[in-house]
Amino acid sequence: MALRVLGIDPGLTRCGFGVVDVEANRRASLVGVGVVGTHSEEPLDQRLLAISLAIDEWLDRHTPDVLAVERVFSQLNVSTVMGTAQASGIVIAAAARRGIAVALHTPTEVKAAVTGNGQADKAAVTKMVTRILRLDTPPRPADAADALALAITHAWRGNGLTSAAPRAGTAMGRGSAGLTPAQRAWAEAAARAKRGGR
Amino acid sequence: MALRVLGIDPGLTRCGFGVVDVEANRRASLVGVGVVGTHSEEPLDQRLLAISLAIDEWLDRHTPDVLAVERVFSQLNVSTVMGTAQASGIVIAAAARRGIAVALHTPTEVKAAVTGNGQADKAAVTKMVTRILRLDTPPRPADAADALALAITHAWRGNGLTSAAPRAGTAMGRGSAGLTPAQRAWAEAAARAKRGGR
Repeated sequence: MALRVLGIDPGLTRCGFGVVDVEANRRASLVGVGVVGTHSEEPLDQRLLAISLAIDEWLDRHTPDVLAVERVFSQLNVSTVMGTAQASGIVIAAAARRGIAVALHTPTEVKAAVTGNGQADKAAVTKMVTRILRLDTPPRPADAADALALAITHAWRGNGLTSAAPRAGTAMGRGSAGLTPAQRAWAEAAARAKRGGR
Repeated sequence: MALRVLGIDPGLTRCGFGVVDVEANRRASLVGVGVVGTHSEEPLDQRLLAISLAIDEWLDRHTPDVLAVERVFSQLNVSTVMGTAQASGIVIAAAARRGIAVALHTPTEVKAAVTGNGQADKAAVTKMVTRILRLDTPPRPADAADALALAITHAWRGNGLTSAAPRAGTAMGRGSAGLTPAQRAWAEAAARAKRGGR
């Protein structure tokens, strides 16, 4: 049975979404890919709303087993990191509300997992994602290749959320500790309501 | 008719919520105040879930006219700013999904509006919030005084979202441009469904 991973490259200007199914033998198949873009002239709340609506649509449509999100701590550009962090907060909370596990991977981890080189450039990542998913042409939109690479990375690092996240607090299983009973019941009910369609 | 403002001091460890009603003559009254706290040992997704559930609960219970959020761009501590930004993204998107306007105010703006001094310390802000809201004792929990100060600041700066936000993109009216028709319909329907109870 395949593991379905929704990879997300969070951002305000472009938020990449990529869904892959990965078999136990590591064979990965493209399920869906896309980018939600917002313009910097739009009000912040409307930009975040677009991302909030998009993540719910992707979770509804593809019911992934895991959400894999790019870890953004390493970014140094404060103005960019703010929007990226706001977008990542929204998508992580949306998954958590449905009881879907969440894992974070750094860009270096993704590049190393997909190309074998943690310093690989964007073109090399896109080329390997195209090959891994057995696509005739690079995934469109091109910006979403990073989201697909994230999803593949998560599946290949052992499917185990713990092994995918060596540091404490970087990956989270379903029903993690820290929820109140009410929160847990809410998340479980939401997950039940949303699942079963696949 | 009073303007009801939900002020939020976003954060992962402590997220402060404060609701005030402010009359046209600037008289402000406390409606509700609280803090949602999460522990740093909890998985990130569960921490963000707690904030996501909390903001929906506060929006449901108090149906504010406006959400006023602390602008966090000025923070320099990258590890703190990430969690703060993730929390702020969640609460802003939650308001936008209901068609509730959102405004951002800097800590300096809040201190200046409430105490007359943009460099005031936390004790001075708490003291003035207590006096403005005509409370016998400082608001509890103490951490939420900043959220109340934010709400008061927003109401006092003229009720107008534009005047409250001198920079482009810092405040957003209902039904802002940038929404697709589907997004607008969604937000309006959600707002209709949630309102009417007050």
